[in-house]
Amino acid sequence: MLRFLTAGESHGRCLVGILEGIPAGLRLDKNDIDQELALRQKGYGRGPRMKIEKDKVEILSGLRRAKTIGSPIALLIRNNDFKINKLPAVLHPRPGHADLAGCLKYDSKDIRDVLERASARETAMRVAIGAICKGFLREFKIALVNHVLRIGQAWAHTERLNFEQIRQRVAHSVLSCADKTAENRMITEIDKAQAQGDSLGGVFAVMAINLPVGLGSYVHWDRRLDGVISGALMSIPAIKGVEIGSGFLGAFQSGSQVQDAIFYNQAKSFYRRTNYAGGLEGGVTNGEPLVVRCAMKPIATLRSPLPSVNIKSKRLAKAAVERADVCAVPAASIVGEAVVSFCLAQAFLEKFGGDSLAETKRNHQGYVKQIKTF
Amino acid sequence: MLRFLTAGESHGRCLVGILEGIPAGLRLDKNDIDQELALRQKGYGRGPRMKIEKDKVEILSGLRRAKTIGSPIALLIRNNDFKINKLPAVLHPRPGHADLAGCLKYDSKDIRDVLERASARETAMRVAIGAICKGFLREFKIALVNHVLRIGQAWAHTERLNFEQIRQRVAHSVLSCADKTAENRMITEIDKAQAQGDSLGGVFAVMAINLPVGLGSYVHWDRRLDGVISGALMSIPAIKGVEIGSGFLGAFQSGSQVQDAIFYNQAKSFYRRTNYAGGLEGGVTNGEPLVVRCAMKPIATLRSPLPSVNIKSKRLAKAAVERADVCAVPAASIVGEAVVSFCLAQAFLEKFGGDSLAETKRNHQGYVKQIKTF
Amino acid sequence: MLRFLTAGESHGRCLVGILEGIPAGLRLDKNDIDQELALRQKGYGRGPRMKIEKDKVEILSGLRRAKTIGSPIALLIRNNDFKINKLPAVLHPRPGHADLAGCLKYDSKDIRDVLERASARETAMRVAIGAICKGFLREFKIALVNHVLRIGQAWAHTERLNFEQIRQRVAHSVLSCADKTAENRMITEIDKAQAQGDSLGGVFAVMAINLPVGLGSYVHWDRRLDGVISGALMSIPAIKGVEIGSGFLGAFQSGSQVQDAIFYNQAKSFYRRTNYAGGLEGGVTNGEPLVVRCAMKPIATLRSPLPSVNIKSKRLAKAAVERADVCAVPAASIVGEAVVSFCLAQAFLEKFGGDSLAETKRNHQGYVKQIKTF
Amino acid sequence: MLRFLTAGESHGRCLVGILEGIPAGLRLDKNDIDQELALRQKGYGRGPRMKIEKDKVEILSGLRRAKTIGSPIALLIRNNDFKINKLPAVLHPRPGHADLAGCLKYDSKDIRDVLERASARETAMRVAIGAICKGFLREFKIALVNHVLRIGQAWAHTERLNFEQIRQRVAHSVLSCADKTAENRMITEIDKAQAQGDSLGGVFAVMAINLPVGLGSYVHWDRRLDGVISGALMSIPAIKGVEIGSGFLGAFQSGSQVQDAIFYNQAKSFYRRTNYAGGLEGGVTNGEPLVVRCAMKPIATLRSPLPSVNIKSKRLAKAAVERADVCAVPAASIVGEAVVSFCLAQAFLEKFGGDSLAETKRNHQGYVKQIKTF
Repeated sequence: MLRFLTAGESHGRCLVGILEGIPAGLRLDKNDIDQELALRQKGYGRGPRMKIEKDKVEILSGLRRAKTIGSPIALLIRNNDFKINKLPAVLHPRPGHADLAGCLKYDSKDIRDVLERASARETAMRVAIGAICKGFLREFKIALVNHVLRIGQAWAHTERLNFEQIRQRVAHSVLSCADKTAENRMITEIDKAQAQGDSLGGVFAVMAINLPVGLGSYVHWDRRLDGVISGALMSIPAIKGVEIGSGFLGAFQSGSQVQDAIFYNQAKSFYRRTNYAGGLEGGVTNGEPLVVRCAMKPIATLRSPLPSVNIKSKRLAKAAVERADVCAVPAASIVGEAVVSFCLAQAFLEKFGGDSLAETKRNHQGYVKQIKTF
Repeated sequence: MLRFLTAGESHGRCLVGILEGIPAGLRLDKNDIDQELALRQKGYGRGPRMKIEKDKVEILSGLRRAKTIGSPIALLIRNNDFKINKLPAVLHPRPGHADLAGCLKYDSKDIRDVLERASARETAMRVAIGAICKGFLREFKIALVNHVLRIGQAWAHTERLNFEQIRQRVAHSVLSCADKTAENRMITEIDKAQAQGDSLGGVFAVMAINLPVGLGSYVHWDRRLDGVISGALMSIPAIKGVEIGSGFLGAFQSGSQVQDAIFYNQAKSFYRRTNYAGGLEGGVTNGEPLVVRCAMKPIATLRSPLPSVNIKSKRLAKAAVERADVCAVPAASIVGEAVVSFCLAQAFLEKFGGDSLAETKRNHQGYVKQIKTF
Repeated sequence: MLRFLTAGESHGRCLVGILEGIPAGLRLDKNDIDQELALRQKGYGRGPRMKIEKDKVEILSGLRRAKTIGSPIALLIRNNDFKINKLPAVLHPRPGHADLAGCLKYDSKDIRDVLERASARETAMRVAIGAICKGFLREFKIALVNHVLRIGQAWAHTERLNFEQIRQRVAHSVLSCADKTAENRMITEIDKAQAQGDSLGGVFAVMAINLPVGLGSYVHWDRRLDGVISGALMSIPAIKGVEIGSGFLGAFQSGSQVQDAIFYNQAKSFYRRTNYAGGLEGGVTNGEPLVVRCAMKPIATLRSPLPSVNIKSKRLAKAAVERADVCAVPAASIVGEAVVSFCLAQAFLEKFGGDSLAETKRNHQGYVKQIKTF
Repeated sequence: MLRFLTAGESHGRCLVGILEGIPAGLRLDKNDIDQELALRQKGYGRGPRMKIEKDKVEILSGLRRAKTIGSPIALLIRNNDFKINKLPAVLHPRPGHADLAGCLKYDSKDIRDVLERASARETAMRVAIGAICKGFLREFKIALVNHVLRIGQAWAHTERLNFEQIRQRVAHSVLSCADKTAENRMITEIDKAQAQGDSLGGVFAVMAINLPVGLGSYVHWDRRLDGVISGALMSIPAIKGVEIGSGFLGAFQSGSQVQDAIFYNQAKSFYRRTNYAGGLEGGVTNGEPLVVRCAMKPIATLRSPLPSVNIKSKRLAKAAVERADVCAVPAASIVGEAVVSFCLAQAFLEKFGGDSLAETKRNHQGYVKQIKTF
């Protein structure tokens, strides 16, 4: 079973991750991971931290001559800003962060003990791990894309774009947005928030294509892929909402409007003309593109800080100011794609098994043929 | 670690569940469970099935003289409509269900093999298990409520109601709705959909109060309580969206508008005047009420069935018609409360440990005192 | 991932089990399970309880028309002796049982709250679950046998017997012993112990043949099959020792004596002429028969009870007397085979995946061919 | 729940480990870990590798100013002998290792892809992780010792030694042996084996004192501490047997001889005068010292290699010769103590919970008092 652990603090020496369960024989290119890490750091509206870090992964184990050998893969991303032991105590918890709850839970009188690990810096490692999973999925023609749908009040219109169109447009956007007009409005919103010392949230989407029918299962609640993916997405810092397919809007329509009628022809086997379900029915992939969206709240660290309380004196105080972004939706969007990649690779390996890439491919092909001749 | 498995098909002999990890010494009343089961079956707009089933739980193990003894608790709910082996083959998959993907995945030529377990009937056992968890949480003054916020186009306004007000109003509503005016509009919507052979979805909320600060953790992604709870909620059949606190709307506001400033006074210790975060910051409970909302798509089984394909002949066909409800949002709302109860009990026991209720209480009280004198 | 939970007390209403993860399409015969349950209850030297119980399983879910459908399989075994709520308090803990530690842990003043679940009665459900796993393995020609090697001072000599010979001899033994002479000595030992109000332990072996090379893995400690199987065996009540292949005796020899040299011919591919390793090298099956042995301590409940202490008065007392066997090694041997069956089925499914039996078989065959043409 | 992953190959860049779940506030000294690592490398009879490696741990995360903060703890141990990508192919599998099964499983034509991770080098990280767990247990006065009981034909007599005596004697032994006379015989055996190009196995014991009554549980098979600990021990490379308390010998005695009668006095509360059970009854700690023993087979890599087969040509060949030890029982003994430390810390945290050391201590003390006034 594919699994991973991560470790590392925001101003610690480094981030560390171990990914266990990738089959042997997968070619892994460090540059593919670094590219995803770079995407996570770009995006209009990012703060000064992003200029400090130029994340590069080091693959410490699990490879021999650039191929996986079945062993756990250990990854390391150095922090250029290693000073955790020297940084002074933080006493003013920031609303919207784990600061206060963390201090109480872990019985710490210094918020820095909390914010160092609660920081979204941790997601860099999730991106690295997701990049490996994405490379694994690529062997089976499964591709993913993420894109920003909303920042502040600006919405992108992407309903008529297919996967490939989105992918191309996103590649040329400073905000991972597939709608150029919307992107301009988003930039204006960000500039305005920046000027006001305020921050913005938004909505992003993750899409995956060429998934085989039958990943996940309805037979037990914790194997339903909708639950697994949503849980992973909601565990990304600042994510406060997740929806699949038609999501909330679909809930307001009538049943006859939001189901995906089933069709058949020999070339495509069973197929749909619509995808209200977002690729998941009964918690199982149905062969249509997976479509999920996440709502990210505005960055909680503000240049004009909110009222807070000194945890020692208990007196009113201004919340601590850590360096922060104005808007991190494009970064969260990359993280979102990474965690979906992990969930899909995990479900894929659970279904198809296999200790070598050749074995997993053989099993997968056997199933594809089974489906075709069903 | 609290865990459970469930089993059972819609027209099988019964549903079975095993809940492992509840401490010894908890008084369990079968009637408390039956009451939740009855709530799941009520609700304006339910179909004929609900008249057939009058779910009653049988507690098969784990109790001695009505108290838990630390052993796993086995539960059984009989199906009055046991005929799984006699029912004829189903060949026309229903869009919106696991029908087609399930047949392909499990290599079955009879959709009944799939729909029997993929049925929402399974959620009755989750409600029973949640009822036990709720009883456990009650020992620590933690209380939950669920209520319907939207059906079709009708919205309830509950922003100004507190937990107790919602609880009282819901108790007198046929739709678990805390807004009488909205409830009437919802009933009209349901009647209309019923007349048209159509179905409706909606939105419900689950709220929990008196949670200690510090359940869940930001230290590892899979321990964040926002992710855990969202994953469990999204695994309820027909749920396509989950949001916490301000959720999607919060994503559209600026950072200064949606954080919960921190205050302190001796009586309440640290507290907030707002609850945009919905009780969770950094994946950890912050002591404010937990507030989550779910979007439920309209029931996918329609009296006026959608286009589908015969899985044998591959010819166009009308989707199968199983008996079904017009609207099951109130039922899903009960299930939602049940799964949140489980997640909270699990996180609670992880933090406080304890093999007997007395021990868990002692540990909890020690922590409450620690927090107070922080 | 194959998993299960069990529930049920010794004098409760029944035992319950849920097995999750068996592929669809496996024919399951209730009689196969009942036969294993009957074997667990037989054996020279068993006490009166075995005459009270005639265990029969009820399959409550997971089947349709006698075949699995991918759903969790719920099992129930009724207790004929259901009186848990009426039985009086037990105050004198029995040395060798969980009685005292259980009362202290779960804060109970009545040992019955402990001994009801700590009883080996629970193993009946593990046998039922193991029987299903064994049926699954049979589809891949994997066969298991268990046999008693020692009771008290009597040793069986089975070194020269192969799997099939052991299976046939065990079938005709009242003690599941493959050595007739030893069996007679064992019976004499049991009669003697019975006359003295004493009890006996012993050693049994479990063997499995036709396992594919490559179950389990050395890449992470918790995936090593030697650890997984040993942990499961040691969790059987009264088991205090486990060894694989040459085990303890092998530890006393020199390296050149106890490794299994590797040979090759076209018919058998790679093979060994010895099996000191007991079928596991580096925590991975090597294609040779799996051989494990367990040491079972004598039954701890004695007709002539040991010194103990009244848990209320704290005064010296005689340990409680529950009805019990003189020797239960043959029963434990059945349980041993059952838990090994589960572990093997789990490792098998992890490697080969598959949601239907047809899919798992196809994947398995592909691998068998890969190995042959390596 | 305490958990960990490890990564790293024998001639890779380094070993990596992540330990997740240690409470905040535990003082961690890198030297304590290095000391355990040094113990693992010493021992009469070790090969040249041990002179190459002088393992030192680097703590990459989870600490701030030398104290844990609740975050995952990442550890790194560098390999001085990093050359995995340059080493030539290995074609002759060594009997007794994962070599052959690993190649077939992972579909690799070069045994080096297998032996790099299957190597016992990996246990260095388990020792480091165990050292942290041991430090955690020390806060609760729980202490562990490991010692060698047998090498080849030489047995140590330690029956009359208590924990403290064993600890002192082991500290002055080149073979971690508490019996000086036996140690000399062991050295002679090792010298002889060395001269013959042969290798030796043996038996070691791990002991833990001051464990609270009630770790582990009988309520579900996979929570029984005997099973958990045995599984972890058997997952150490070359371990082929595990026994608890009287183990195999206890199985040959009668019931009245091998149970530990229960006594009581006010100072000690309930206690035993014997410890046949090895501190575990019903899978639960009973307050007496935990005593486990492991059988280690002789090192499988021999200077005078065994018959094997070239995996490409399929012709007879001599097994590959990797540098190796003559006897590694003292090293395995250290690893044994480490894995037991992890299992105990895990069970301890499951019972007592707690996010800070202060909280866990408070919970533990409350329980100790509960037991005393039972």
